[in-house]
Amino acid sequence: MNFASDNAGPAHPAILAAMTAANAGHSPGYGAEAAMERVQAMVREIFEAPEAAVRLVATGTAANSLLLATLARPWETIFCARTAHVQEDECNAPEFFTGGAKLTLVEAPDGRMDPDALRAAIAAEEGRGVHGPKRGPVTLTETSEKGTTHGPARIAELAAIARAHGLPVHMDGARLSNALAHCGARPAGISWQAGVDALSLGATKNGCVGLEIVVLFDPAQAQEFDYRRKRAGHLFSKHRYLSAQAEAWLSDGLWLDLAARANAAAALLAQGLGARGVELLYPVEANLMFFRAPRGLHRRLHEGGAQYYLWGGDLEGGNPDDLLTGRLVCDWSADAAAVERFLALI
Amino acid sequence: MNFASDNAGPAHPAILAAMTAANAGHSPGYGAEAAMERVQAMVREIFEAPEAAVRLVATGTAANSLLLATLARPWETIFCARTAHVQEDECNAPEFFTGGAKLTLVEAPDGRMDPDALRAAIAAEEGRGVHGPKRGPVTLTETSEKGTTHGPARIAELAAIARAHGLPVHMDGARLSNALAHCGARPAGISWQAGVDALSLGATKNGCVGLEIVVLFDPAQAQEFDYRRKRAGHLFSKHRYLSAQAEAWLSDGLWLDLAARANAAAALLAQGLGARGVELLYPVEANLMFFRAPRGLHRRLHEGGAQYYLWGGDLEGGNPDDLLTGRLVCDWSADAAAVERFLALI
Amino acid sequence: MNFASDNAGPAHPAILAAMTAANAGHSPGYGAEAAMERVQAMVREIFEAPEAAVRLVATGTAANSLLLATLARPWETIFCARTAHVQEDECNAPEFFTGGAKLTLVEAPDGRMDPDALRAAIAAEEGRGVHGPKRGPVTLTETSEKGTTHGPARIAELAAIARAHGLPVHMDGARLSNALAHCGARPAGISWQAGVDALSLGATKNGCVGLEIVVLFDPAQAQEFDYRRKRAGHLFSKHRYLSAQAEAWLSDGLWLDLAARANAAAALLAQGLGARGVELLYPVEANLMFFRAPRGLHRRLHEGGAQYYLWGGDLEGGNPDDLLTGRLVCDWSADAAAVERFLALI
Amino acid sequence: MNFASDNAGPAHPAILAAMTAANAGHSPGYGAEAAMERVQAMVREIFEAPEAAVRLVATGTAANSLLLATLARPWETIFCARTAHVQEDECNAPEFFTGGAKLTLVEAPDGRMDPDALRAAIAAEEGRGVHGPKRGPVTLTETSEKGTTHGPARIAELAAIARAHGLPVHMDGARLSNALAHCGARPAGISWQAGVDALSLGATKNGCVGLEIVVLFDPAQAQEFDYRRKRAGHLFSKHRYLSAQAEAWLSDGLWLDLAARANAAAALLAQGLGARGVELLYPVEANLMFFRAPRGLHRRLHEGGAQYYLWGGDLEGGNPDDLLTGRLVCDWSADAAAVERFLALI
Repeated sequence: MNFASDNAGPAHPAILAAMTAANAGHSPGYGAEAAMERVQAMVREIFEAPEAAVRLVATGTAANSLLLATLARPWETIFCARTAHVQEDECNAPEFFTGGAKLTLVEAPDGRMDPDALRAAIAAEEGRGVHGPKRGPVTLTETSEKGTTHGPARIAELAAIARAHGLPVHMDGARLSNALAHCGARPAGISWQAGVDALSLGATKNGCVGLEIVVLFDPAQAQEFDYRRKRAGHLFSKHRYLSAQAEAWLSDGLWLDLAARANAAAALLAQGLGARGVELLYPVEANLMFFRAPRGLHRRLHEGGAQYYLWGGDLEGGNPDDLLTGRLVCDWSADAAAVERFLALI
Repeated sequence: MNFASDNAGPAHPAILAAMTAANAGHSPGYGAEAAMERVQAMVREIFEAPEAAVRLVATGTAANSLLLATLARPWETIFCARTAHVQEDECNAPEFFTGGAKLTLVEAPDGRMDPDALRAAIAAEEGRGVHGPKRGPVTLTETSEKGTTHGPARIAELAAIARAHGLPVHMDGARLSNALAHCGARPAGISWQAGVDALSLGATKNGCVGLEIVVLFDPAQAQEFDYRRKRAGHLFSKHRYLSAQAEAWLSDGLWLDLAARANAAAALLAQGLGARGVELLYPVEANLMFFRAPRGLHRRLHEGGAQYYLWGGDLEGGNPDDLLTGRLVCDWSADAAAVERFLALI
Repeated sequence: MNFASDNAGPAHPAILAAMTAANAGHSPGYGAEAAMERVQAMVREIFEAPEAAVRLVATGTAANSLLLATLARPWETIFCARTAHVQEDECNAPEFFTGGAKLTLVEAPDGRMDPDALRAAIAAEEGRGVHGPKRGPVTLTETSEKGTTHGPARIAELAAIARAHGLPVHMDGARLSNALAHCGARPAGISWQAGVDALSLGATKNGCVGLEIVVLFDPAQAQEFDYRRKRAGHLFSKHRYLSAQAEAWLSDGLWLDLAARANAAAALLAQGLGARGVELLYPVEANLMFFRAPRGLHRRLHEGGAQYYLWGGDLEGGNPDDLLTGRLVCDWSADAAAVERFLALI
Repeated sequence: MNFASDNAGPAHPAILAAMTAANAGHSPGYGAEAAMERVQAMVREIFEAPEAAVRLVATGTAANSLLLATLARPWETIFCARTAHVQEDECNAPEFFTGGAKLTLVEAPDGRMDPDALRAAIAAEEGRGVHGPKRGPVTLTETSEKGTTHGPARIAELAAIARAHGLPVHMDGARLSNALAHCGARPAGISWQAGVDALSLGATKNGCVGLEIVVLFDPAQAQEFDYRRKRAGHLFSKHRYLSAQAEAWLSDGLWLDLAARANAAAALLAQGLGARGVELLYPVEANLMFFRAPRGLHRRLHEGGAQYYLWGGDLEGGNPDDLLTGRLVCDWSADAAAVERFLALI
């Protein structure tokens, strides 16, 4: 009953099998292996973007920060949701990689940036000449950190605000596959057709060992990305184990299948919680959810073997009736039995 | 009738006279001139801080950023008022000088950080291990950007919150002299005795040519500051012209006299505005104020020769009845006649 | 006949088997998995350093740069061999991670820093107060980039020069295992006992998928390292696949066995070249060598299927008699048959 | 008898008079004052560059570093003379401002970069793809740190090497006025016509209080420069005191007159040293020189009241016969009497 994070789950066996299969003989490194050609072709086809530049890195923070550094100048500010991973969970990586750009926080009550709040935030960075930070990229997280999804229309609405000011748009797609599995949109429709310039497509959380696929829809930016990746220590010499992961993950729709499995487990969990009168804070659209419950219940769940993180207070101490928020994340390997055991504890 | 900024005013003649007097013969540079010894002794005496390290730079952004970089590590976040100069008007200088530290904005409705908001902001940066930014320095602005002053008690209250978490405290004292002239506190009482570790004492806005006095109450931090100042191009070779300014400015209480003059002009202006029914947004305690008035009035004032900045809209276009906010700043040279001419236009 | 790089070879099957074995069920991430405890214990035992802090990253540039950033301040200069990987092959990563420290190049004619040159380089950074860069860490590469090894005595000699000036010592041990396999020294003897403070122990080039083991002999520096690793995107969420590699690699002396295999292949190759009168530029002590030969011979070798890099000129064009330098690297999987085929082409 | 540095001398009285004259009434700041328009027009006329963008900062390190950061990307290396101020005397400022670019040192035995050495250095940074640093700007120092001058032909020769590789050229002209006074070249001829893209024209060392004039011959780079200047704290609010210095310094050829005075004093000194058999290390072409003499003589000079820096050893201790190098710098205010007193001590 581990619902702590989708990165607590294992990789799909096909991924390790592919890495093992790639482990034969000598190979050029640094992305010059033949498999990388195939990966780029697959991504271009899946995203209907025949010119896109495709790169691989091993962590989500690397993908996000390298892309933001490619899109932003150091004197700019990056507009992100208040809850965004780049703001909350990357220990100032965007500031580091960009050489000191700022993040401007946009309200996103349910994890999705509010369009009016984005408009206001952009407008507020106007009219101070060289004195204030200059407007830089807008970064959107799909699936959001709260487990909600934007879908193509909302992404397009937000991206249009950015583009009206000439600002590039980045998508942190650490869980984009879960959003796609939810809404059924075409990858092109939720990315470049909706106005996204550069994408971090997360695979680690969804069945890989350590892989994030970077998609630069404007290939002219690839060279700068390459220099930044190298000097940040994120270019792998034995790159074949990244391309092997990517090829297996994208083959035969595995990436979407795994996302659908995780979503299904989450839906089952949400349904069960709802049926038991447990309060869910946001619509459950992908593979994670937040629920509010008394500390006493959280204790019982943890004592029963459930693993997940709490927000707003500790398990120990305090009044058993205090309401604390728990986050439950289902990875691709979460099964119905675990969900049922969890629900049975309530 | 120039109320645009205190840096639009001239230097006091004594400052230029001192620079001219310093312009005789050869002198060691880089702060090794004899006058710098005297300046350090004066600052130590004025602040009752016999161990403090004193340094000079030429701009406020340099003073603030160099000090914040000395106090913060790159993976930390600096707590500042939402309205702080370091956030709004330094084009990401703190992020640049610190090597990528973050700024966490604390609500400060009237320019003064709300203690509960500071507590909440610090608490919110807890419990994410290496993932979130780590808590770093708290920076307070006295006089605040809204023209209000904290006074020693409020500074001490905010600094105590920082120190309870082991966080150092910086004061952006670009207009500290105006606050002191207002409240009559002892410099020690509003700085190190209230919990301030490092101070940017602004002189440029208050009668100098280009001078900010840096006071490190913990002299052990001076060496790091010195390396940072040098590698940022802020160590002056012909340093004698900075120490000459400082010596003249601090002599015979000139710095407080000039601040008192500016405050008096502002008080006269505020009184006149109040008498004419003009809405002032915040208490006028130092040398600047914000007033709300219809666009039509702002136009009349500007056409009559008044100079000041508007917030929330442009002078031209739009409805003459729209309420716009104007900022009025009095420098030491603002005289009663200018104030009267301004008021007469209303 | 791929002698292009040791990272062109495959991982040892035991490494992928260990990763596959680790792929079971849920696990804490970010190094909190149980295997990481075991890895730290193994490293401590192997290095006879019961207090050392052990960390894992995936690339050599990450290991080197994060350690150098932990050891150096931005206003310092890092002393490295002119041929060092950190200078030549990391696209300014040390400058990036340190926030702008400098590298001072020390002559190292055969890849090993000359002690007198190091003394002179350190002495030259003296006496300019805040104006010049300040002296920072010394970094040594064992096995050197030229395929020579220092051995404990030479490492100790160089480290003593650093320590006499109070400077910390870093070892880039991308091929340390090859040096140990060559000289038979104890790991402690060539590292902390010789004066090394922090070590990048390379595993990627020697049979792993992507793994570098960071050893901080002073564990007080681990926390700063951890923040730097996180904010550089080098902390892996599914960290178990790094610790699995490390555990397998260090078990039963596999790491030294693999290094010995690579060295043996290189010795065979060197012997054969020598027997055929081919000029070798440096003593062949580990798993790589440089040889000088006419362009015509290089062409014949490449046309015969040999893969390796050339220095000082291209294969195509030019005079067939021009002497060009080739670098031959044997990885653990290089076998005698490949060596024989290569030699037969000469 | 102060020959320690040209920044040990006073400013010319006309400079302080101009600052005092500028100290009247209110003025826009940040370079928006009317005088700045005049300064830009004067520089454009003097340099026959009607499109050039002109900016003012207060220190040479600021001018150099801001320009190099504008010309270089963080993954590039800047080619500079081994003796360059940016390498030796700016405490890693170029690395800081550029966000981690590297400096590649080019041999310059007499302070002037050797063309073949520059060619070789550029060639050496070739062919390692993303792994090595990429080639960046070439920076030339005129007058060189050794007191020699390049003149237009040598500048053009070196710049042509850079331009053949598409690399921009920066000139550190801290003492450009001395070189111009020496060779009589037109400012255009030694700068943009010779291939220089951006110039730091030093005024501080040559009679100003604190002023460096930045000339961007490609005005398209001015906006980036402006953001960088602001976020580095080098944009002055009371900018009028910079433009006042510049206007006075450039008026009526004062800048060249002052340089000629300094050069004349240096020539007198060099002649006297030569006549007394003292060894001068380099041709004396501007306002500084290096001489080699026994420690005993250096002691006698210092005891007699001469001030200057020594290279290669200390005044105290050691053998009186040891040969040490002394640097003598004449500023504009150095007079014949001081020179005669100095020579009389020998």
